[in-house]
Amino acid sequence: MSAVTDYIEANREQFLAGLVELLRIPSISAGTRNTGDVLRCAEWLAAHMRQVGLNNVQILPTGGHPAIYADWMDAPSGSSTVLVYGHYDVQPVDPLNEWETEPFEPTVRDGRIFARGAADDKGQVFMHRKAIEAYLQTVGRLPINLKLIVEGEEEIGSEHLDSFMQTYKDMLRADMVVVSDTSWFANDVPSLTYGLRGLTYLQVDLQGPPNDVHSGSYGGAVGNPIQALVQMLASLKDADDHVTIAGFYDAVRPITPQEQNAWDELPFNEQEYLAELGVPELHGERGYSVLERLWARPTLEINGIWGGFTGEGSKTIIPARASAKISCRLVADQDPEQIIALVEDHLRRICPSWVTITITRMGTGKASVTELDSPGVQAALRALERSFGKRAVFIRGGGSIPIVASFQDVLSLPAVLMGMADADDHAHAPNERFGLDKFYGGITAAAYLWEELATGAPAD
Amino acid sequence: MSAVTDYIEANREQFLAGLVELLRIPSISAGTRNTGDVLRCAEWLAAHMRQVGLNNVQILPTGGHPAIYADWMDAPSGSSTVLVYGHYDVQPVDPLNEWETEPFEPTVRDGRIFARGAADDKGQVFMHRKAIEAYLQTVGRLPINLKLIVEGEEEIGSEHLDSFMQTYKDMLRADMVVVSDTSWFANDVPSLTYGLRGLTYLQVDLQGPPNDVHSGSYGGAVGNPIQALVQMLASLKDADDHVTIAGFYDAVRPITPQEQNAWDELPFNEQEYLAELGVPELHGERGYSVLERLWARPTLEINGIWGGFTGEGSKTIIPARASAKISCRLVADQDPEQIIALVEDHLRRICPSWVTITITRMGTGKASVTELDSPGVQAALRALERSFGKRAVFIRGGGSIPIVASFQDVLSLPAVLMGMADADDHAHAPNERFGLDKFYGGITAAAYLWEELATGAPAD
Repeated sequence: MSAVTDYIEANREQFLAGLVELLRIPSISAGTRNTGDVLRCAEWLAAHMRQVGLNNVQILPTGGHPAIYADWMDAPSGSSTVLVYGHYDVQPVDPLNEWETEPFEPTVRDGRIFARGAADDKGQVFMHRKAIEAYLQTVGRLPINLKLIVEGEEEIGSEHLDSFMQTYKDMLRADMVVVSDTSWFANDVPSLTYGLRGLTYLQVDLQGPPNDVHSGSYGGAVGNPIQALVQMLASLKDADDHVTIAGFYDAVRPITPQEQNAWDELPFNEQEYLAELGVPELHGERGYSVLERLWARPTLEINGIWGGFTGEGSKTIIPARASAKISCRLVADQDPEQIIALVEDHLRRICPSWVTITITRMGTGKASVTELDSPGVQAALRALERSFGKRAVFIRGGGSIPIVASFQDVLSLPAVLMGMADADDHAHAPNERFGLDKFYGGITAAAYLWEELATGAPAD
Repeated sequence: MSAVTDYIEANREQFLAGLVELLRIPSISAGTRNTGDVLRCAEWLAAHMRQVGLNNVQILPTGGHPAIYADWMDAPSGSSTVLVYGHYDVQPVDPLNEWETEPFEPTVRDGRIFARGAADDKGQVFMHRKAIEAYLQTVGRLPINLKLIVEGEEEIGSEHLDSFMQTYKDMLRADMVVVSDTSWFANDVPSLTYGLRGLTYLQVDLQGPPNDVHSGSYGGAVGNPIQALVQMLASLKDADDHVTIAGFYDAVRPITPQEQNAWDELPFNEQEYLAELGVPELHGERGYSVLERLWARPTLEINGIWGGFTGEGSKTIIPARASAKISCRLVADQDPEQIIALVEDHLRRICPSWVTITITRMGTGKASVTELDSPGVQAALRALERSFGKRAVFIRGGGSIPIVASFQDVLSLPAVLMGMADADDHAHAPNERFGLDKFYGGITAAAYLWEELATGAPAD
């Protein structure tokens, strides 16, 4: 094993240079503008995986952006097989003017690499490939069988991955799935994530008059779709920030007393959290702690809103249209399809008759919760401790990796969420970054994980 | 006089060609992008006014976009002096994709000329210049003294014109002001407007976290400025569409029984109005008729709203900022400064403590009501009847020409609002148009107006 870790130690510059190349590709999956870049990124990764020594490298169509598959299945018979999942697509970059350096010109500052996708998820995808390289370049083999799947639609809801998994069910068969797409609780607190929120996303468009009309000539007679929209959206939450949609909370699974105790012991400091976020005070659903609100309660957020004149200066119109993008983060055991239907029905019901409503559903994903005593989770716990010298804490995440729930549902795979992102990684925001200590430590932890899975308690 | 009207008849093509040239200049006053075009338009008009034979043509600085002054003061001593006001600036053109032809490529279809500014107000400004040309090219003189002022900031609230009027008070001295910037009640109903609404306009910006943050990682803990904005804006009106801001309606002057009777007799057909607008039903303040809501009641409209992700696809963020543009149409005797202060104070009071609010005031203007028996209004009534063969109706307008109130306040000038725009001119909207029958008939009516003012009941 020391040959593997020595290789990792000796090749840091080469690893970083490769990551920079990967981060330069603007593989934004939302919209259609970067479709070519997304494909180019898939091809770059496929070539890299062949170079590392993986077998059966294939770019597979999904109906949307392609996924990349590769494997290494030459472990002694009886070895367990681990599926490693990640995604190579990234979030859009606007507002671009808030980036200190260009989102696709990776820059190292203060021991971190700044670029869109640095933490979410290219840096973590690359980490696993470099652990494989370290094994294959030194001992010439891996201690277990590995299958790797890297998708290109995680940031837009992985909408084609369920059918992809059905199609390639045999090819993807494994004993567990390892996902590195989560963050640590704090930058010096190694963490294993055992729960994630689900997601539903929709766009609502309201149409008033066919054209913008003069707000003097028509103001008072013609309804304003922005007015309708703000009234509809405002009514979705009450004064306690509870969502007012009937049935929204019905399936929410309460947290256990054990979880409550564990969360109480986490080093959460509200003042530091406020300072890190740069907001004067927190705001959320009344009656729950911050961690409960983030990890165990569903939310409804307006992710975007637009309508009418948004340029410089003044323009006196009643606009023809107003639109909003709305998403809900969901928790176990909420069913995303049921929730999106509740939200859609509610919006249609409260929409006034003087505007016309159109609703577009834009992806859903289930929440997930993993068993803490599974062999994979325990092996990851040991791997993290060997790499970082500290016992990891168990946390949940507020974000969504809908695919984790799908792996559990479709392929019955227990999930190990060994993420390495920084607590303040600015994922989905300007100035996304990834700590290089996490990147290098994560490569070592991945290498240890496979050894632990081979020699520790074998997966069932 | 027949020489004058014959000239008008004979020169229609030349008049139209000149108007096309004027409409080609994108003199959008909002924002700073077209500042050069606005100046170019002022220069074009000044040159044209010299060519027509007007004297003392000057482009005068205002602190914003310049105004153009010209006069012809050679009428016999004792003649009255009329100030003719108009504006050469135009509204922005977005949404550009809804224009059937380019906004600054004037196109004649079905007897109308389509272009931004065709009706509001370049077509009407040009009309007056052509009536002057017809007199000076035929009889060689005008029947009265004329002063012309054309401003470049009407569409952004004429903010510098009050101080401009104070500065040039002596130069602008006159017996009345004639404004052609209003519409007919219907396309075959010549109309004189005796009341206009006032205006206040402001922008509200809410700041949440310094950057957009991940709606999964932070959703539930960090307040969403779009949520705050929609809740604030929704609360500004109650279920009857009454504005909820305390004191908002205090100074509203009720309409007289005479006005009520006159309005009841106007050929208003709600079904035709709905069809013209293309909306399924009207919407406005409960308890008032459509014309009352348009002419005699103040409104509060959200003219624009924006925040967060507004692109194609989905992006899961809590945005850093959310903004809206809000304007109120005001009626006599509301004081715009008082109303904008009420709105601003109210918004600050209802803004939650977890966001930071910034309010930018963007212009105000008073409502105005003119005496119907003034000599100018009566002369205009006769001029319209001579040109169009029908007696005009007296109407109010829902729009604002704040400067009309300023002429009354600062220069004590009674106003004659002899507008020629079509009832469905799409002012401020895509596909703005101006009927050529109104354009040519308006030139003749302006010519008659000066004759009527000279020979009819003289202005006091």
